[in-house]
Amino acid sequence: MSISMRGFRERASVESALDLIDHRTRRLGHEAVALLEAGGRVLARDAVSAVDVPPFPRAAMDGYAVRAAETFGATPDDPRPLRIAGESLPARPAEQSVESERCVRIMTGAPLPAGADAVVPVERTRVEGETVFVLEAVTPGRHVGERGEDIRKGDRVLRAGRRLRPQDLGVLSSMGFARVFVVRRPKVAILVTGNELLAPGSMPSGDRIVDANSPMLIELVRRDGGTPLTGPILPDEPDTMREALEVSAREAECLLVTGGSSVGAEDHAPDLVRELGELPVHGIAMRPSSPAGVGFIASKPVFLLPGNPVSCLCAYDFFAGRAIRRLAGRPMGWPHITLRMPLARKIASELGRTDYVRVRIEERAVVPLAIRGASILTSTTRAHGFVIVPQAAEGYPEGATVEVRLY
Amino acid sequence: MSISMRGFRERASVESALDLIDHRTRRLGHEAVALLEAGGRVLARDAVSAVDVPPFPRAAMDGYAVRAAETFGATPDDPRPLRIAGESLPARPAEQSVESERCVRIMTGAPLPAGADAVVPVERTRVEGETVFVLEAVTPGRHVGERGEDIRKGDRVLRAGRRLRPQDLGVLSSMGFARVFVVRRPKVAILVTGNELLAPGSMPSGDRIVDANSPMLIELVRRDGGTPLTGPILPDEPDTMREALEVSAREAECLLVTGGSSVGAEDHAPDLVRELGELPVHGIAMRPSSPAGVGFIASKPVFLLPGNPVSCLCAYDFFAGRAIRRLAGRPMGWPHITLRMPLARKIASELGRTDYVRVRIEERAVVPLAIRGASILTSTTRAHGFVIVPQAAEGYPEGATVEVRLY
Repeated sequence: MSISMRGFRERASVESALDLIDHRTRRLGHEAVALLEAGGRVLARDAVSAVDVPPFPRAAMDGYAVRAAETFGATPDDPRPLRIAGESLPARPAEQSVESERCVRIMTGAPLPAGADAVVPVERTRVEGETVFVLEAVTPGRHVGERGEDIRKGDRVLRAGRRLRPQDLGVLSSMGFARVFVVRRPKVAILVTGNELLAPGSMPSGDRIVDANSPMLIELVRRDGGTPLTGPILPDEPDTMREALEVSAREAECLLVTGGSSVGAEDHAPDLVRELGELPVHGIAMRPSSPAGVGFIASKPVFLLPGNPVSCLCAYDFFAGRAIRRLAGRPMGWPHITLRMPLARKIASELGRTDYVRVRIEERAVVPLAIRGASILTSTTRAHGFVIVPQAAEGYPEGATVEVRLY
Repeated sequence: MSISMRGFRERASVESALDLIDHRTRRLGHEAVALLEAGGRVLARDAVSAVDVPPFPRAAMDGYAVRAAETFGATPDDPRPLRIAGESLPARPAEQSVESERCVRIMTGAPLPAGADAVVPVERTRVEGETVFVLEAVTPGRHVGERGEDIRKGDRVLRAGRRLRPQDLGVLSSMGFARVFVVRRPKVAILVTGNELLAPGSMPSGDRIVDANSPMLIELVRRDGGTPLTGPILPDEPDTMREALEVSAREAECLLVTGGSSVGAEDHAPDLVRELGELPVHGIAMRPSSPAGVGFIASKPVFLLPGNPVSCLCAYDFFAGRAIRRLAGRPMGWPHITLRMPLARKIASELGRTDYVRVRIEERAVVPLAIRGASILTSTTRAHGFVIVPQAAEGYPEGATVEVRLY
């Protein structure tokens, strides 16, 4: 057997690869999920209330439901006596309405009785037998939650596209939502190729190493709102890979292929993607990850991620993660928290190439890690984050303020 | 029936409640989980490698394995011819060693043959038949990943206490970890009380509203690394609640009780917690959430969260979330992303009281929401985040730079 090897003819810019992704991916359709499973999902339709919340006026404090005007002028020295005519508890409203010189004991959340227009908090009263002495005036509406004060029927409370927070689930629950329409999670097939690879959970032995990429990619896909689909590690063999790509293109909305992405003889993935679809981008002017590619099979985006784990992480974060977030209805930009800080040492880069530089933060300065190799995955565990040097820059001088994206 | 109502005698400071939590909660023990389920979990033991990664020297580029010294002086005009003696593929190493004036074709990741000490990338060569012309010199070690260059046997690669990132799973996989010891997730019982409450998924009707707190709390507990345990909504009835507290204190590591937490007659939770354990904090100098409480049953922390949903959210975030994060082995501090920005309008507060002020961010300024009511949960969905006014401050003037914690 002979192996043919050829270099990349021309490398695409990072920008053009991003443009391609942005033009060719769209938010997926929706599905209904149970309210309690909707946290973190992206709302697919505006949530409009069919009801007033609360559906009745209610006490906002424990105390006494009164006619506010009858408390005017009340002070500790000149308290207003009111006769306690009944009580209103949550879900057990008072039968009596509040007549003149009367009041009704009321608990927080209980319906305000007819006739009353305010609540005097218990702390502002003194009780003697069946008489309550009001020590402080209240204005009409005081300590009362009006019907619909939180949400009115017809209110468009949450907009489509919003990622649901814990309190959003509370609001949806209070409006009576049992299920919510959310953007479907993209199913992302992770295809790992490499004769040298053992499945995660194995011990490395002999000439073989353990696949580090799929555990990392599974977690990255989950972070970006996708559902990872995995299978056995694929041999560097075209027929097996072709079948895996065809099946994945039917079952998944996005494909990640790691390993076999370059231009060597065992790198079958690029030719297979061309055969089954198209591969507009292969070879990108960046470091690491220059052998990465972006293609489509049956309109599903396919990302060729280099087998070297740092390159794999970098290419995922630049390209695949963006597409997955778009499919999932999330903001497409980098999901990392960013800090701005001065560089402790210069970063050198080449004009025309985008660099992904792992950095540590030490004494409030950014220290680039002096690790060249794309195979040193521990450089990304020692690093706190990364700095991107865009293609238009020849690096950054010492002391320059740079943006660090935290892992 | 008569209802007795009394105010809080004295309110604890937020600080003292936090101190109590910090002194009385500890990280839980560990459990083994499958590697692929360990993302986001907190490592309970240092991860020490039992192997070198890679376990053999390997090519970092596609090209030719050579004796570097034999390429010295090579240029495109004066290339060095080497005879191709074999090939080394991943998991299929060359049988030949590299003799003088010979080389071995090699793929990225393949074992470096004996005799070779560098790899010439394919892009720096020209091939004619079985001879490769090296166009550029390489130094010894160039484009070679040495044995153990990523991880050496005995390296303490990841430290206990670290929250596992995607790339950490990759590193653990490459060391042959099939399972990982992580801090157990705290089981958090969520007890919702209130006769007026309907279960999430119901439509509000008559005198009854739908529980907004448990959907919110379930999601908050998940955010903070806990596993929520829920049951049916509890009536405001002491015997049922006592049993629920007892069962929960056996099954869970932390209890959240929402509703019935104040000092009204239907507020049974405080007395029951005192009866079954202790309630050192009840009533806190803060707004909202002043009726919140912190207690213990069988050494398990119990948080009394007001039924008003904004108070519930606030008390959860101040107290319960902190305890759950501590139990889960996470950093105890606020988990929110923070921004620093000027205030568009002043915030008034009282000396001695901690305020939780919902805010919006508009035109790069912080706008406090003019919503008093702790019952207006939509104020927390309209808000982008919140500002805390500590007890030592009487609020902040317009223009002051404040820290916003983003929801």
